[in-house]
Amino acid sequence: MEAKSQSLVPESYAINGGDGPYSYAQNSLYQRGIMEAAKGMINEEIAMKLDIQKLSLAASEPIRIADLGCSCGANTILAIQNILEALKRKFRTHPTPEFQVFFNDQVSNDFNSLFASLPVLGRQYYAASVPGSFHGRLFPTASLHFVYSSCALHWLSKVPKGVVDKTDPAWNEGRIHYTGAPKEVFEAYSDQFAKDIDSFLQARGKELAPGGLMALLIPAIPDVISHPQITTGSEPELLGSCLVDMEKMGIVSEAKVDTFNLPIYFTYPKELRQIIEGNGCFSIKRMEILNIPKQHIVMPEPRQRTLYLRALLEALIEKHFGNEIIDQLFEIY
Amino acid sequence: MEAKSQSLVPESYAINGGDGPYSYAQNSLYQRGIMEAAKGMINEEIAMKLDIQKLSLAASEPIRIADLGCSCGANTILAIQNILEALKRKFRTHPTPEFQVFFNDQVSNDFNSLFASLPVLGRQYYAASVPGSFHGRLFPTASLHFVYSSCALHWLSKVPKGVVDKTDPAWNEGRIHYTGAPKEVFEAYSDQFAKDIDSFLQARGKELAPGGLMALLIPAIPDVISHPQITTGSEPELLGSCLVDMEKMGIVSEAKVDTFNLPIYFTYPKELRQIIEGNGCFSIKRMEILNIPKQHIVMPEPRQRTLYLRALLEALIEKHFGNEIIDQLFEIY
Repeated sequence: MEAKSQSLVPESYAINGGDGPYSYAQNSLYQRGIMEAAKGMINEEIAMKLDIQKLSLAASEPIRIADLGCSCGANTILAIQNILEALKRKFRTHPTPEFQVFFNDQVSNDFNSLFASLPVLGRQYYAASVPGSFHGRLFPTASLHFVYSSCALHWLSKVPKGVVDKTDPAWNEGRIHYTGAPKEVFEAYSDQFAKDIDSFLQARGKELAPGGLMALLIPAIPDVISHPQITTGSEPELLGSCLVDMEKMGIVSEAKVDTFNLPIYFTYPKELRQIIEGNGCFSIKRMEILNIPKQHIVMPEPRQRTLYLRALLEALIEKHFGNEIIDQLFEIY
Repeated sequence: MEAKSQSLVPESYAINGGDGPYSYAQNSLYQRGIMEAAKGMINEEIAMKLDIQKLSLAASEPIRIADLGCSCGANTILAIQNILEALKRKFRTHPTPEFQVFFNDQVSNDFNSLFASLPVLGRQYYAASVPGSFHGRLFPTASLHFVYSSCALHWLSKVPKGVVDKTDPAWNEGRIHYTGAPKEVFEAYSDQFAKDIDSFLQARGKELAPGGLMALLIPAIPDVISHPQITTGSEPELLGSCLVDMEKMGIVSEAKVDTFNLPIYFTYPKELRQIIEGNGCFSIKRMEILNIPKQHIVMPEPRQRTLYLRALLEALIEKHFGNEIIDQLFEIY
């Protein structure tokens, strides 16, 4: 086996590491809310749907859990703790197995920060990290028993090709996302998302042991909202207009703005279901829109929204435009 | 299972990360020589002593390899590549298994650099890293098939207690190591080493699958040389005298020098054999003093020796004395 797929995917989308004021760790309350909302569902599914017999663990084989696209904050550790407790309840009547947890993210993720934040006392699992894109293979065949991924699958493996190609109908002139863009741009993003989820499911289909479960928390748009409606006034559009303003001020070049696009796509439940069913590696046990309590007060101020966006996107923007523009860009934003 | 042991061991001995002029990656030619010298031996032992039947791999189970105390340089990747090729030759007549490699070092190791240096194209194994002290448990029971550790086991889990205790016969006044010190100091180091190796072997005894092999490359002193002879003029003694000079110049306090000791011990083959046999978890298949070719030209200049020592010890010295003294200390050295 050659880990070929790893080389096909750009490794440029890690979010801000460390724990400074612009770090993801300090600006991911929204993700925490999502995790909390999913907790009950995950507990129920592990209790009701995980089939210990079907897992057919070998003697002394540990339960292996993976968090894909974990980043480096505290949310991943809390999420894993919850999954672990649900699994331990499940094994109450069996000899308690050992647990091994694999934290995955892009090679450029700040794993040093992640390791520094792992609990030392009373940690009930062996921890490991796995660098690389989850759009390719990361683990040996049938070696995982529970896969978790939260707020990560909306990141595309790359910006769709046509979007940065002047000769393509999907060329996205003067914008950095499909928000407010012609239909062709949106479709190019949508196609890329479908391809990426398909690659993700192909890889996990090989890595998950028979009887294993996967819980994916994916930011999405309700089916009832059609694409142009939701997109007006969104963060990417606003950030894009800031970049266009900076272009007009002569700070960044037009070519730079035209070739920059956010590799992010927000799917619809219906679309996602179609992709998963078309892929065929997994059957959907449950699919729900999470009710995130206090969603409206999690990020009350523009300043906090800016910090949140900066934690997510700084590395990506810096790579394309250089780091001189970052402070000014988020100031304007 | 609780990973209790992890909390008992201080996490302060990681060597210099990154790839700057003072990094370990740029100053570890000596370790490269050791690895090259061990290559043939490891190949032979895998070919002759590894018992595939006894490993009794489950269906689709990967071969799991661990490099303990891997640091963050290129040497670890070359060493693993060699082990992998030897294992693949071994499995020539069987279906080729998948391989998963675990790179271990202290939590404070620069894993970000390690991941950045992993080969992307043609890598024939799934990579993961495991943070924590190898003096405690790091992996699930019976989950490893080949364990490798090079130039790491001479690092003690801590400075022996008595050595920094004014009331203890082993108090090591005005020195930073057992070199040139009274017998009691040497014995305190020797006792700590025996305890540490015992903990290491206990942990590995549980983690290595039956039939698995372990290759340990440990810096040691030939049995024929008794302790006071080798120690005069050694690096630690010289570095200690530099610190004492700085104390006389009023740059560092006497108390700081008296409480600083290097947590490093160079064992003897005879002593190591006794510890391993006394522990009882492993049988020794082969034990040899490596013939390192070109040893005398690997580190020809004092400047290079200084860089090498700085890469190894800077973090440790900085933690105790603060970073103001580092440049001046290695200047004097």
